[in-house]
Amino acid sequence: MYDAGLKNRREVLGADYVDNSIGNADSFNSEFQELVTRYCWGEVWSREGLTRRERSLINLGMISALNRPHELKLHVKGALNNGLTRDDIKEVLLQVMIYCGVPAAVDSFRVAREVLGHDNDR
Amino acid sequence: MYDAGLKNRREVLGADYVDNSIGNADSFNSEFQELVTRYCWGEVWSREGLTRRERSLINLGMISALNRPHELKLHVKGALNNGLTRDDIKEVLLQVMIYCGVPAAVDSFRVAREVLGHDNDR
Amino acid sequence: MYDAGLKNRREVLGADYVDNSIGNADSFNSEFQELVTRYCWGEVWSREGLTRRERSLINLGMISALNRPHELKLHVKGALNNGLTRDDIKEVLLQVMIYCGVPAAVDSFRVAREVLGHDNDR
Amino acid sequence: MYDAGLKNRREVLGADYVDNSIGNADSFNSEFQELVTRYCWGEVWSREGLTRRERSLINLGMISALNRPHELKLHVKGALNNGLTRDDIKEVLLQVMIYCGVPAAVDSFRVAREVLGHDNDR
Amino acid sequence: MYDAGLKNRREVLGADYVDNSIGNADSFNSEFQELVTRYCWGEVWSREGLTRRERSLINLGMISALNRPHELKLHVKGALNNGLTRDDIKEVLLQVMIYCGVPAAVDSFRVAREVLGHDNDR
Amino acid sequence: MYDAGLKNRREVLGADYVDNSIGNADSFNSEFQELVTRYCWGEVWSREGLTRRERSLINLGMISALNRPHELKLHVKGALNNGLTRDDIKEVLLQVMIYCGVPAAVDSFRVAREVLGHDNDR
Repeated sequence: MYDAGLKNRREVLGADYVDNSIGNADSFNSEFQELVTRYCWGEVWSREGLTRRERSLINLGMISALNRPHELKLHVKGALNNGLTRDDIKEVLLQVMIYCGVPAAVDSFRVAREVLGHDNDR
Repeated sequence: MYDAGLKNRREVLGADYVDNSIGNADSFNSEFQELVTRYCWGEVWSREGLTRRERSLINLGMISALNRPHELKLHVKGALNNGLTRDDIKEVLLQVMIYCGVPAAVDSFRVAREVLGHDNDR
Repeated sequence: MYDAGLKNRREVLGADYVDNSIGNADSFNSEFQELVTRYCWGEVWSREGLTRRERSLINLGMISALNRPHELKLHVKGALNNGLTRDDIKEVLLQVMIYCGVPAAVDSFRVAREVLGHDNDR
Repeated sequence: MYDAGLKNRREVLGADYVDNSIGNADSFNSEFQELVTRYCWGEVWSREGLTRRERSLINLGMISALNRPHELKLHVKGALNNGLTRDDIKEVLLQVMIYCGVPAAVDSFRVAREVLGHDNDR
Repeated sequence: MYDAGLKNRREVLGADYVDNSIGNADSFNSEFQELVTRYCWGEVWSREGLTRRERSLINLGMISALNRPHELKLHVKGALNNGLTRDDIKEVLLQVMIYCGVPAAVDSFRVAREVLGHDNDR
Repeated sequence: MYDAGLKNRREVLGADYVDNSIGNADSFNSEFQELVTRYCWGEVWSREGLTRRERSLINLGMISALNRPHELKLHVKGALNNGLTRDDIKEVLLQVMIYCGVPAAVDSFRVAREVLGHDNDR
C-alpha cells in the first residue's frame, strides 16, 4: 500500500516535490510522511470509484473550505497534473464563492493565481 | 436570471421542496430566497464549465468541510438527482475522512445514510 | 464585576433564562457560569465603547460564522431585547450570506425564524 | 492492525457501541468502518508515546474546537473509560472557553452534561 | 447593479485598491470580480436597512471568526473609511476575544495594528 | 489575579516574549493584554485540576484544530517549557492528522518544525 501510495503521490503532486518531502523528513515527521503516503495516497487515491480529475475537483472545494492555503497551492498544481484546465479551476472557485463566502473565494483565487500566473505572463 | 435559477434549483433539489421553500417564505426571508435563486442557482449553476455531476461532487466535499448537516442532507438528495450513485457518494465521504478528519466523515456518513437508507431496507 | 455582568446578562438574555441557567448549575458547570458572567457579561458587555444594539449586530454575524445554532438562537432573542427589529436581523443575515456563504445563511435564517415566527402567525 | 484497532476502539468507546456500529454497517459504510478501525484506532491509538488519559484530554479539546457534538459525546464517554474524572473534563472545557470562545464552551458543557448527568441526579 | 456596486466598493475599500483589482483581473478572475461587485457590493451594500458603520462592525467580527486575515486587513481600512474610530475597532476585537477565543483575537489585533499603526508612530 | 497570570504567562511563553508584548502595547491593545493575562493566564492556567504538561497537550490539539499558526508556534515553545519532548509533540500532531485531517496536520508539522528544527541541525 505504501508503494501504491508513493506512486500516486508522485504522479499527482510531482516527483520532485514528493521526493524532497520524504528525503527531507527526520525523526520528527517521517512517521507522518509514511502514514500520509499509505492512507491518503494509498488507501484513498488508489480507489477506483472516482477519476483523478473528480478527486481534484473535490479537493479544491474542500481545501478552500478548510482554509488551508499551503495545501491548496499544492493541490492546484495537482489539479493541473490531473488534467484540470485553468477554466475548470475557475469554475470550482466560483462555486466556493457561493458556498464558502466571498473571503474564502478571494483567498483561493489569489492562491490559485500564484500557481497559474497571469494571462499576460503567458 | 431568476427564472434560470429557479429551473436549476427545482431540477437539482426537487420541485416540491423548492416550491414549498418559496411558497412558505414571508417578509423575513423572501428576499433571501430570491437572492439565493438568482445568485447561487442562476449565476453559478447555470454556468457550463462543469457538469451537474461534478458540481455535486464538489458540494458534498465542501459542505462536509463546512459542517452544515442540513444543507448536506439536501445536497445528498441533489446528488442523486444529478446522477451520482450511492457508491460515488461513498467515495467522496472517504475522501472527506482523509482531508477533513474522522469526526467530519462520521457526521457526513450518518447524514447521507438518513437519505440513502440501509442496504437491507431496500 | 460579577454583579455588573449578571445585570447585563439578565437584561440582554432575559431574567428567566439566566436565573434558570445559574440555578440549574451544579459542581460541573457552576465555575463556568461564574466566569462567563464575569468575563463575557461583566468585562465586555459593560464597556461603553459600543451600544448594545451594535454588540448584538456583531454577535449575530459572528455566531453565524462560528456555526453555533444554540447560541445564535439565544442571541436573536437578545437582539430583540437590545432593540433590533426583525428587519435589522434580516439585514445581518443577508450579509452573512455573502461573507460566510449560502449554507451558513440558510441555517441562520432557519434558526432566527424559530424565534421570530412567521409573518402570518402574528 | 485491524485487530489492534478493534481492541482499542472497544476498550475506549465501549464494546456494545462498537459492535453495534460494525454490525450495523452495510455496503455504504463498511469500508469506512474498516478504515477508521485500522487508521484511527490501530495506527494512532496503538502508539505508546502518550497515555490514553492524555489522548482523551487532547480529543476533548480538539473535538470541541472542531464543533462536532456527536463525536464529542462519544469521546466524553471514552474519556470516562480512560480514567478521566468529571473534574478533569470540566478543566478541559474551561480551557475551551478561553481558546475556542464562549459559544464553543457552552455547547461542550451542554453535551458533556448529557453524558455526565446532574450532581443531584446521582 | 454593477455600477451601484462599483461605487460602494470604491467608497468603502478605496478607489485605488479597487481600480487596481479590476484593472489587474484577467480571464481567470474577471468574472469573479464582476460577480463580487454586483452581488456583494451591489445587492447587499446598497441596501438601506443598516448603516455602513454597522455593516463594518459586523464584518470585522464575522471575518475574524472566519479566520481570513487578508480580508480582515482590507475591512479594517474599510471600517476607517466608514467612520469607525480606532477605539470602535478595539471594542469589536475585545468582543471577538470572548466569542471566538483568544487566538482569534490575537491574530485580529495584530492584523488591525498593521493598518492602524502604533500610538507612538502617530 | 493579574500578577498570578503574569507569572504563569512568563513561565510558559518565556519572560522575554511576554515582557516585550506588554511593553510594546499601546492604547489600542493594552486592555486586551490585560484581559488575556488576567482571564487566560490567571483564571485558567492557575487552576490546579490539570498539570501544565496536560494543558499544553490540549492546546496543541485545540490550536491546530482552530487553524491559528501564529499561536501554535508560540504554544509549541510553551510546550517545551512545560516539559513536553519533541516526541510528545509528534504524538499530538499524529492525532491531529486523524481528527482534523491531513491538511491541518501538514500545517502543524511545518509550524512545529520551525520551532524544533531538523534532526540534522542539532
